Amino acid sequence: MTATPPATTPASPDASSTGARPSGKKAPTTAPPQHPIGRIPVQDVRPLVDGGRRPAKSVVDEEFTVTATVFREGHDAVNATVVLTDPVGRELVVPMRCVNEGLNSWVAEVAADAAGWWSYRVEGWSDPYGTWEHDATIKVSADVDTELMLEEGARVLERALDEVTRTPAQAKPLQDAVTGLRDSRRPAQARLHAGTDPHVRAELHARPLRDYVSPTAEHPLLVERERALYGAWYEIFPRSEGAVQDPVTGRWTTGTFRTAQKRLPAIARMGFDVVYLTPIHPIGTTARKGPNNTLHAGPEDPGSPYAIGSPDGGHDAIDPNLGTFEDFDAFVAEAERLGLEVAMDIALQCSPDHPYVTEHPEWFTTRADGTIAYAENPPKKYQDIYPLNFDNDPQGAYAEMRRVIQVWIDHGVKIFRVDNPHTKPVEFWQWIIADVAENHPEVIWLSEAFTKPAMMHTLARVGFQQSYTYYAWRNQKWELEEYCRELAGDAAAYMRPSFWPTTHDILTPYMQFGGPTAWKLRAALAAMLVPTYGIYAGYELVEHVARPGAEEQIDNEKYQFKDRRWADYEPGGPREGQSLAGYLTKLNQIRRDHPALHRLRNLVFHHVDDANIMAFSKRRTLPDGSEDIVIVVANLDPHSTRESTVHLDMPALGFDYHEHFGAHDLITDQSWHWGEHNYVRLGPASEPVHVIAIRRY
Amino acid sequence: MTATPPATTPASPDASSTGARPSGKKAPTTAPPQHPIGRIPVQDVRPLVDGGRRPAKSVVDEEFTVTATVFREGHDAVNATVVLTDPVGRELVVPMRCVNEGLNSWVAEVAADAAGWWSYRVEGWSDPYGTWEHDATIKVSADVDTELMLEEGARVLERALDEVTRTPAQAKPLQDAVTGLRDSRRPAQARLHAGTDPHVRAELHARPLRDYVSPTAEHPLLVERERALYGAWYEIFPRSEGAVQDPVTGRWTTGTFRTAQKRLPAIARMGFDVVYLTPIHPIGTTARKGPNNTLHAGPEDPGSPYAIGSPDGGHDAIDPNLGTFEDFDAFVAEAERLGLEVAMDIALQCSPDHPYVTEHPEWFTTRADGTIAYAENPPKKYQDIYPLNFDNDPQGAYAEMRRVIQVWIDHGVKIFRVDNPHTKPVEFWQWIIADVAENHPEVIWLSEAFTKPAMMHTLARVGFQQSYTYYAWRNQKWELEEYCRELAGDAAAYMRPSFWPTTHDILTPYMQFGGPTAWKLRAALAAMLVPTYGIYAGYELVEHVARPGAEEQIDNEKYQFKDRRWADYEPGGPREGQSLAGYLTKLNQIRRDHPALHRLRNLVFHHVDDANIMAFSKRRTLPDGSEDIVIVVANLDPHSTRESTVHLDMPALGFDYHEHFGAHDLITDQSWHWGEHNYVRLGPASEPVHVIAIRRY
Repeated sequence: MTATPPATTPASPDASSTGARPSGKKAPTTAPPQHPIGRIPVQDVRPLVDGGRRPAKSVVDEEFTVTATVFREGHDAVNATVVLTDPVGRELVVPMRCVNEGLNSWVAEVAADAAGWWSYRVEGWSDPYGTWEHDATIKVSADVDTELMLEEGARVLERALDEVTRTPAQAKPLQDAVTGLRDSRRPAQARLHAGTDPHVRAELHARPLRDYVSPTAEHPLLVERERALYGAWYEIFPRSEGAVQDPVTGRWTTGTFRTAQKRLPAIARMGFDVVYLTPIHPIGTTARKGPNNTLHAGPEDPGSPYAIGSPDGGHDAIDPNLGTFEDFDAFVAEAERLGLEVAMDIALQCSPDHPYVTEHPEWFTTRADGTIAYAENPPKKYQDIYPLNFDNDPQGAYAEMRRVIQVWIDHGVKIFRVDNPHTKPVEFWQWIIADVAENHPEVIWLSEAFTKPAMMHTLARVGFQQSYTYYAWRNQKWELEEYCRELAGDAAAYMRPSFWPTTHDILTPYMQFGGPTAWKLRAALAAMLVPTYGIYAGYELVEHVARPGAEEQIDNEKYQFKDRRWADYEPGGPREGQSLAGYLTKLNQIRRDHPALHRLRNLVFHHVDDANIMAFSKRRTLPDGSEDIVIVVANLDPHSTRESTVHLDMPALGFDYHEHFGAHDLITDQSWHWGEHNYVRLGPASEPVHVIAIRRY
Repeated sequence: MTATPPATTPASPDASSTGARPSGKKAPTTAPPQHPIGRIPVQDVRPLVDGGRRPAKSVVDEEFTVTATVFREGHDAVNATVVLTDPVGRELVVPMRCVNEGLNSWVAEVAADAAGWWSYRVEGWSDPYGTWEHDATIKVSADVDTELMLEEGARVLERALDEVTRTPAQAKPLQDAVTGLRDSRRPAQARLHAGTDPHVRAELHARPLRDYVSPTAEHPLLVERERALYGAWYEIFPRSEGAVQDPVTGRWTTGTFRTAQKRLPAIARMGFDVVYLTPIHPIGTTARKGPNNTLHAGPEDPGSPYAIGSPDGGHDAIDPNLGTFEDFDAFVAEAERLGLEVAMDIALQCSPDHPYVTEHPEWFTTRADGTIAYAENPPKKYQDIYPLNFDNDPQGAYAEMRRVIQVWIDHGVKIFRVDNPHTKPVEFWQWIIADVAENHPEVIWLSEAFTKPAMMHTLARVGFQQSYTYYAWRNQKWELEEYCRELAGDAAAYMRPSFWPTTHDILTPYMQFGGPTAWKLRAALAAMLVPTYGIYAGYELVEHVARPGAEEQIDNEKYQFKDRRWADYEPGGPREGQSLAGYLTKLNQIRRDHPALHRLRNLVFHHVDDANIMAFSKRRTLPDGSEDIVIVVANLDPHSTRESTVHLDMPALGFDYHEHFGAHDLITDQSWHWGEHNYVRLGPASEPVHVIAIRRY
């Protein structure tokens, strides 16, 4: 990856022909403010983010489709090409194909094979061979202008030989065609066939003769590492992992990085890729919240880790109760050894005890009475939190935030989960993400913005690699399909969704009352619908009890220690068999085994008669040409076992409608003979979800 | 109108705040290739043509809606403004309003009051008064921070007084509010009301205090004269108007400009605005087509006026059979005297006898055998037509076409109907339309491209003021509604449709077999659905007989003379009462009387129970504040009289659902008492269409 991205040219004429007009002459150019159109117009290129002002995104080797409307005047043949330019200027040229003649729609599947700033353009062009082939095939058959058509074919192929560089082997079929077209001893149809031979077509498909090549502007494409799209996350409060309550005194001993580190092998064994830590900084004591969000904490209450900052330090410091930087480094090293990346929570807000409050009061908002403004949603007050103000001293505040991030990058963190980014200026996030990427393009930022669509999409457009989603609140089939189509459609060019069935802040009624069937279902859907999903610690234990009146857990870890006694669920323990850890392990193993699940844009829904049963598939062609296909069928009703018929969109799976295949359920290890229409029975009586691998007969 | 358009800035940052950050400090700017987002993000501005690379269009005083997604971080108030900048740099500032909080959708209705190159931008901004008003209203009512909130209100208003220029009268309500907010002798609610008084709000709506003003790029807006959007056209073959056949010999005497001129008063009396002439140039004799498109013309056959060019001259010449330039000038002058504009047919193709063929063979395509290529659609041949080639010598060919156009502009033509523009390079049209507009911005070009949507929309985007449409082939309610919604929706920002029920090339089965009811219906729909419609001469006479196997008229005027004996239909004539001229006159009078019909984007459809009865309305607020509303109800089945119920979208008409109004049918002069649900009876038994004016009770 290059640190200096190539200049892109979103403002260049999208269009004056750069390829040859055979006459070699240039047409007069339309004067500004008109923006010259190309000789062969190319319109409506997709993906295109904010009209090309922001990059489309992919991860390395992620297949995506470029579409464009390409057409021309008159009846001559038109053709189109996608050109991807990599960070060092190498061009990857991909032929497009017309998929709708009436709408002049052209498509090509492309993938960028290295991280960094790429660009892409579509080139429309006139296809003299295509024109000749079309006309000659009709006219020679009708014996209209036969000699003339055959000679014109020879001349087109001579141009193709003269004007395009070819090896002798590549030139051979064209030379043979020229000879054959002019061989007047042979019948006209034979001479025509010499010019339209499949070898001729193949050579001209690979190295076409192109007239009037009309490129669009170069559109930016930001290619990031695969973890930006694909990964299974596991969230922990580090202080809970190893926390112990004295059964006699009731007093807690906090967990630390050293004790939390001991939990890492179990997380890795379940097959997770990322361990995400809620904030690890010193916690304020002023207006500290007590258990269950009560207003007054007792002296033993640890406080919310989101109330950041105390005399022990701020965002660049570690809560001394958790350990030292050495302990943190050891934790990160152990995670890395186990194949886990560490994601850190970035909550840019301060407790009243944060060092910034005295050292940099200009980074807060001062009220008319001279006090610093605490967080409010009138009339609600959050007196334990001082929001940062990025506008009083943007240069200073931005630089300090950048310094803080670098502290953690220097300690091995490459993923930041950003708390409530939608309460800070969007332009700040754009700046800091881009500034970090200049030297650390490997860094991934996850946006925890549970807010309106415009903000969520814009945060993604300006740089966040990943975004939390509305997944937790989409429980019906119609709304899941609608939402996932949006996410896997145009939005996938810039926003990568992360699906979480629960978090420490979210426990929906569906999860409160759906029972273990719901917890299996929602984990499986999250894991299969999108490439990045996450589980909050304790999900294995179906921690479904909410604080009355709230949609979050009772005795929330945000305000107190929690000892989950993991050992009780191990073999031989008193609660053996009462954990979903094995189910999650299976889901993660399926994800690792099936590269189709590492992608988002390949999501296809299939019709099921029952409005509560959803079916979808993912299909991906691998570099070796083989295909990976996974079909998921899920009963979304956690309370009833349902039977229905799944109607598969067979072409979307690469089959003809009449074909059959072996369907192997990776959850239950059962196998069936499936075709277009298939009976299913799913629900609490057995399993809520089939995850089916396909075996071709 | 200025000849030199102002530079627009489609490539400028759409975004770094230019308005004040109250701290006066600037934030660090995100480095390229990232495109900095605004402090207050503004996304998805509409209208936006080709991402802002091509102008949105309107005509002078045409109302249109600007929409944008505007939002911000946190809970503070956001606001937005549209700024239109006229050709001399004067800014027209229009407040936007939020119409969907969840989607952060903002809209404003705007209109540009002069022709020329304008630009527009949307500014998102932080609204300190809005923030205070929201918070203070809640907090003072709950008695939270009451004194502080009232003082902060006084300070916001002091800023509004200090930072925005106001007359003493404008400042007064704000000064009073400051005093009232600080008047500690009064109750808190009274002090709050002093700060939220309607006069305060009105003053701040008109002259707001704006922080973090974040403008989008300037997008181009091309404002053209009203005839570009609104007009009724009447098509004639000039040689037919006054042509007479000798009843004995069967020989024809051609019509001329002098005889055709005599038809102009009748066209004007019917209320048409534009008289459109098929080509008037010398006609070739080589391979001339005979009657009914037969291959070999007799010596008396006049030939198709689309086979342009003979030894008498080409596109800059007049067919000597029609007259001289003096005759043409007289024709144009008479038309002008009658309030008619002359539209000229531009068919850029040549007969083999055109002077270009010998003088400029480089402007044609030469085949491998040295011959000039005639028009083909293999295996069909059109040997009477040589298409021009604009690529062999673009500089020369473009300059010549430009010269030809200027000849006709110099003879008073301001409207060109372009024959088959989709068979010439799109970039040619863009160039010539823009080049003409530099000195003749009044010139209007109508695209006769009956082809695929991409070409039609792109020709409009690059400059054509008007476009023929699929109207003739949209006969069902669902397809008319779908198509008109497209045309009156986003496409209306760049494409202005012209609806023609028939042309000299088009006679659909619906018109062949629908009888006079169909001809009334299709004229009325065309005249009422869109602001520009056209009638081909003879429509009055229901000339419905097609050439067998073709969807055009038998004995088509393209290939022969036609004497319609107009006098026979006059009062006292043998065919008195057999013409639809009176109906067309009525339609055109209604169009002139109702300014709502001069607009396209105001089209609204209403539900009718019968799938064959369509209802729509147009509503427009006039500069004097009055409203013009027209409702049209049409039975699309020309063979049956049908009864049904029309369900009006009352708010779209400016009424509440429970209200009633006087409905006056301008066709039959009947009146009814109408409300939300209304009985109608329409069809061949009476009239196929109601055109209803509204009288408020």
